[in-house]
Amino acid sequence: MSHKKIVVIGGGTGTFTVLSGLKVFNNLKLKAIVNMVDDGGSTGKLRDELGVLPPGDIRQCLVALAESPEILRQLFNYRFDSGELTGHNFGNLFLSALEKITGNFEEAVKTAGDILSIKGAVIPVTTDNINLFISLQNGTELMGQSCIQDSQEMLKHPVKEVKLIPKAKLNPRAKKAILEADTIIIGPGLFYGSLIPNLIVPGMKEALIKTQAQIIYNVNLMSQMGTSKPWSVEEHLNQINKFIGAEVIDIALYNTTKPDSKLVRKYKEEGKPVLKATKSNKIGKTTLIGADLIADGIFINPNKKDLMRRTLIRHDPLKLAEALYRLI
Amino acid sequence: MSHKKIVVIGGGTGTFTVLSGLKVFNNLKLKAIVNMVDDGGSTGKLRDELGVLPPGDIRQCLVALAESPEILRQLFNYRFDSGELTGHNFGNLFLSALEKITGNFEEAVKTAGDILSIKGAVIPVTTDNINLFISLQNGTELMGQSCIQDSQEMLKHPVKEVKLIPKAKLNPRAKKAILEADTIIIGPGLFYGSLIPNLIVPGMKEALIKTQAQIIYNVNLMSQMGTSKPWSVEEHLNQINKFIGAEVIDIALYNTTKPDSKLVRKYKEEGKPVLKATKSNKIGKTTLIGADLIADGIFINPNKKDLMRRTLIRHDPLKLAEALYRLI
Repeated sequence: MSHKKIVVIGGGTGTFTVLSGLKVFNNLKLKAIVNMVDDGGSTGKLRDELGVLPPGDIRQCLVALAESPEILRQLFNYRFDSGELTGHNFGNLFLSALEKITGNFEEAVKTAGDILSIKGAVIPVTTDNINLFISLQNGTELMGQSCIQDSQEMLKHPVKEVKLIPKAKLNPRAKKAILEADTIIIGPGLFYGSLIPNLIVPGMKEALIKTQAQIIYNVNLMSQMGTSKPWSVEEHLNQINKFIGAEVIDIALYNTTKPDSKLVRKYKEEGKPVLKATKSNKIGKTTLIGADLIADGIFINPNKKDLMRRTLIRHDPLKLAEALYRLI
Repeated sequence: MSHKKIVVIGGGTGTFTVLSGLKVFNNLKLKAIVNMVDDGGSTGKLRDELGVLPPGDIRQCLVALAESPEILRQLFNYRFDSGELTGHNFGNLFLSALEKITGNFEEAVKTAGDILSIKGAVIPVTTDNINLFISLQNGTELMGQSCIQDSQEMLKHPVKEVKLIPKAKLNPRAKKAILEADTIIIGPGLFYGSLIPNLIVPGMKEALIKTQAQIIYNVNLMSQMGTSKPWSVEEHLNQINKFIGAEVIDIALYNTTKPDSKLVRKYKEEGKPVLKATKSNKIGKTTLIGADLIADGIFINPNKKDLMRRTLIRHDPLKLAEALYRLI
């Protein structure tokens, strides 16, 4: 069995889903490249108070790739719920304490990975301490991933500029992983909050151009807003190309199944319309592929081995993994 | 090489010292039985806010027995020093989070022990959630280990009663370890704060009477106060016998070397006189043995692999271990 080297670029729940799904295939070597702009919740507090790099998304990817006993995965996801520790996530504290001891975030990630017996690697896209800055065409300026996540302004006004402050350098390990990959998977994930902060790191464009890897872009289930109408599949692709600064996407994979109509309505009321399928099969060099990727009413979480009724529109880890595996 | 089963009873720095020292001998199987009355600092906060059992002393013993890479030992001892986490010890958070997840303190200790690759076992003397209560002959009542630790009253007035509230049951694993041991080592450690809270757990007396093990009592370097004059070696032994409720000590080991006179003066000013050697060799069934057990001006900490200049009068882990090893 020949092994394929797969690099997943993102951070957060979307990347957790892709990693959790792809992990079941024994012939894939998985590496996750994770954005470093998280500044909300437990992670934000730790950045502020300890001066550490953001542990939250890294921790999620570590747990996704963990082969350790279930108890350790539960521990890394455990959130304290009383007293002054309320809201702090244990895995975040683990990474931050190790970073304080070693002075080296990547060594902390490696040690955590050893304890969790991860299959693969988790790589911060940069080890510079950066923040996300976004300005909108109406003049609004937003600093920090946590600010843009629930911004009502962003639903109405197009984005003018996205920057990392101060300037970030691409982690050499991320560059190496990209150059050595057989397939690179971008997303799903928050478009401006998670994907773009990876793609605009100086050096990323050159690495994505240089690599021989096939590059797959997982379009989100919900249309991004911020222009006169919700983004189409094509518009998502245009925007990804624009931020990368080159047309490197070989395949754009998107969902074609309609979610439960009650959920669609609920999301629409929150200003989040469901992505519409497209009739095109190709734009420029990119092949567009639609598939049923959505989690049904009952959702099997492969990481918790239990059933939960869906109240969110989410990718099904196994459906998404299967669709990706056919392309790899 | 025949293996000897050694049980160390205590908790805190004294037990850490004994375990760290004895760990270097390959033919010893070490088990630590730890008191569960710590309620100060990080441990006290976690007990109050999360309702967990006290992790602090258990964590110290785990680190003493750890064979894991140095970085994990450092992690378990790491204390956050800024923000709202200030003062919290990482190893304590580890044990408390696991206890919250599993609902089982001993399972938490076991999982932490696995991660630290401990050689031996660490056993809470009881898994009941208890507090230490002490009343003095002048009527003063003290609740909690942290209250007695710096009590000026206790330097002046004899102790009338020591209780655990509510009543504790001896952990069956502690009982088993005692019954199977070849040698049991009590102390050194805080007399009322650490040793007695182990020895008065119902069932302990019976186990210590029943066991075939040789029982060694490490007398503290400083004389306990609270009577008209500082306790002699003999008085320490009398008091241990009184609290156990039976004469079970085979050997009382005490230090004979005078510490640095500046340190002696400093301790004396704090109301802590250095223990005096005795001329007796035997009291009842107990053999009294004096030896040079004290750490020199320069102290090699076997757990941190660095040198530190002594500003405390402490047992030298290697000298103490060597003296104990001769008796085992």
